[in-house]
Amino acid sequence: MGFSDRIETAVSDAIALGQAGSTPGKLKSALHYAVSPGGARIRPTILLGVAAACGEDKPEISNAAACALELIHCASLVHDDLPCFDDADTRRGKPSLHRAYSEPLAVLAGDSLIVMGFEVLARVAHLDPMRSVQLVMTLAQKTGMPGGICAGQGWESEDEVDLKAYHSAKTAALFVAATQMGAIAGGQDPEAWEELGQRIGAAFQIADDLRDALYDAETLGKPVGQDALHARPNAVAKFGVQGAIDQLHDSLSGAIASIPSCPGEAQLAQMVQSYAKRLTPVAPSKSTVPGE
Amino acid sequence: MGFSDRIETAVSDAIALGQAGSTPGKLKSALHYAVSPGGARIRPTILLGVAAACGEDKPEISNAAACALELIHCASLVHDDLPCFDDADTRRGKPSLHRAYSEPLAVLAGDSLIVMGFEVLARVAHLDPMRSVQLVMTLAQKTGMPGGICAGQGWESEDEVDLKAYHSAKTAALFVAATQMGAIAGGQDPEAWEELGQRIGAAFQIADDLRDALYDAETLGKPVGQDALHARPNAVAKFGVQGAIDQLHDSLSGAIASIPSCPGEAQLAQMVQSYAKRLTPVAPSKSTVPGE
Repeated sequence: MGFSDRIETAVSDAIALGQAGSTPGKLKSALHYAVSPGGARIRPTILLGVAAACGEDKPEISNAAACALELIHCASLVHDDLPCFDDADTRRGKPSLHRAYSEPLAVLAGDSLIVMGFEVLARVAHLDPMRSVQLVMTLAQKTGMPGGICAGQGWESEDEVDLKAYHSAKTAALFVAATQMGAIAGGQDPEAWEELGQRIGAAFQIADDLRDALYDAETLGKPVGQDALHARPNAVAKFGVQGAIDQLHDSLSGAIASIPSCPGEAQLAQMVQSYAKRLTPVAPSKSTVPGE
Repeated sequence: MGFSDRIETAVSDAIALGQAGSTPGKLKSALHYAVSPGGARIRPTILLGVAAACGEDKPEISNAAACALELIHCASLVHDDLPCFDDADTRRGKPSLHRAYSEPLAVLAGDSLIVMGFEVLARVAHLDPMRSVQLVMTLAQKTGMPGGICAGQGWESEDEVDLKAYHSAKTAALFVAATQMGAIAGGQDPEAWEELGQRIGAAFQIADDLRDALYDAETLGKPVGQDALHARPNAVAKFGVQGAIDQLHDSLSGAIASIPSCPGEAQLAQMVQSYAKRLTPVAPSKSTVPGE
């Protein structure tokens, strides 16, 4: 099974487990809505890429890790779209969850997906309890306070922002989770994999800034111009389009150079390279960039 | 150290760990606000009571379990108070978190506390990885979908409610988490401890219904008459005050009878008995019922 099929199967299975027995029907349906159709699934794909590069011996653990990470990412999108944050009407080309269901169900769907992420990791404990619990720890640290995506979003309520901490928490955190959880799932020490996650995260942030500044809402499947609207820092505003593209390339070269020595090093480098091409904006009118 | 000190210390330590390094100051402060001053801390107290009754051999694990459970409970209060749910102005005698800070910070504080709950459990994995991961699993199942407090709250968005599933998920779930996590922390099989949690949960639900119907907002430190306002099922509306009190006593007798045979059985029965007295409403004007 390819990475994509492994991710979709693991996510569908997890959502199905959250629907057994007598459950509130709207929340049940909202959970499915929140994870499908998938976006690029870039974070779990990187996770599986790293696990494979590490010489993965227990693919069920990697699948659980990839699924857990994607569930947390989907939860963050649902909560970020809420009226009190971005107030987004659309996501992945369809109405945002609170528009399609309601605000209470959007809060609850996000909460449920966060919890489900950790449950999925606990479910594979029989295969290797230490890896399972290390995955819980890493995912928690990259999701919550003080260094995870909750902290990243929290910075947007501050009058004075520590830009480095903000970007590291808001965007890079889940990419570091991807590389480190991939290493843990593959039975390796996660420490050496932090830099790769940081650099991919930085590249992704710049690519996102470029898309927000250059594309229209129809192409992206979500509102554009949000950074200007919410006065958020944006690399295009700071360095111009060409400057931001140069920075994107630098980050990705740095990412490839930072890959730790491992059995599947060359293949992983190739994978990051191919992301580099997909991330770099081309003529907006012809592009079909998958929305997140 | 008594149960109360163990709980307060564990909760404070967890919140402090979520504040290390460069963090968004308002969210950091909101986390502290969400957990203090504590309410009755009834769930973690029951958890420590069960762990002790089971012949607790690793108190650090019990402390982590008690803390994790209380963090999840506090998170649920913060999210339940949001404008899109109860729209509560007060909680534990002070402004609700979204009133004191903002709605975005209330969503993020709840999310961060949920994540922190699982992180706290992962932190004690070095003492016993299987217990740590079993605690993660049990807490997740009693928090998320399909049977946890998220599901319980989700029922309130349904036109037709499965009342048994609703009460089981909305209130009993975290009491079952308390008894089962106490058993796991104490090195015992959690299955035998489900009934005790269910029965204490049922009693607590009736007591809460009585308080909502009988007390004023000042005594409770939170708005009253919420069940009538939100058309939620309430035992007093259904059975009258005396009928509800009779049911409360029946539930607590059943709870005591259901305690599995264990080294500290008698002491635990005494503890549940003392809760029975605290839960039963007396003349409202003289009462000082601790608010949740």
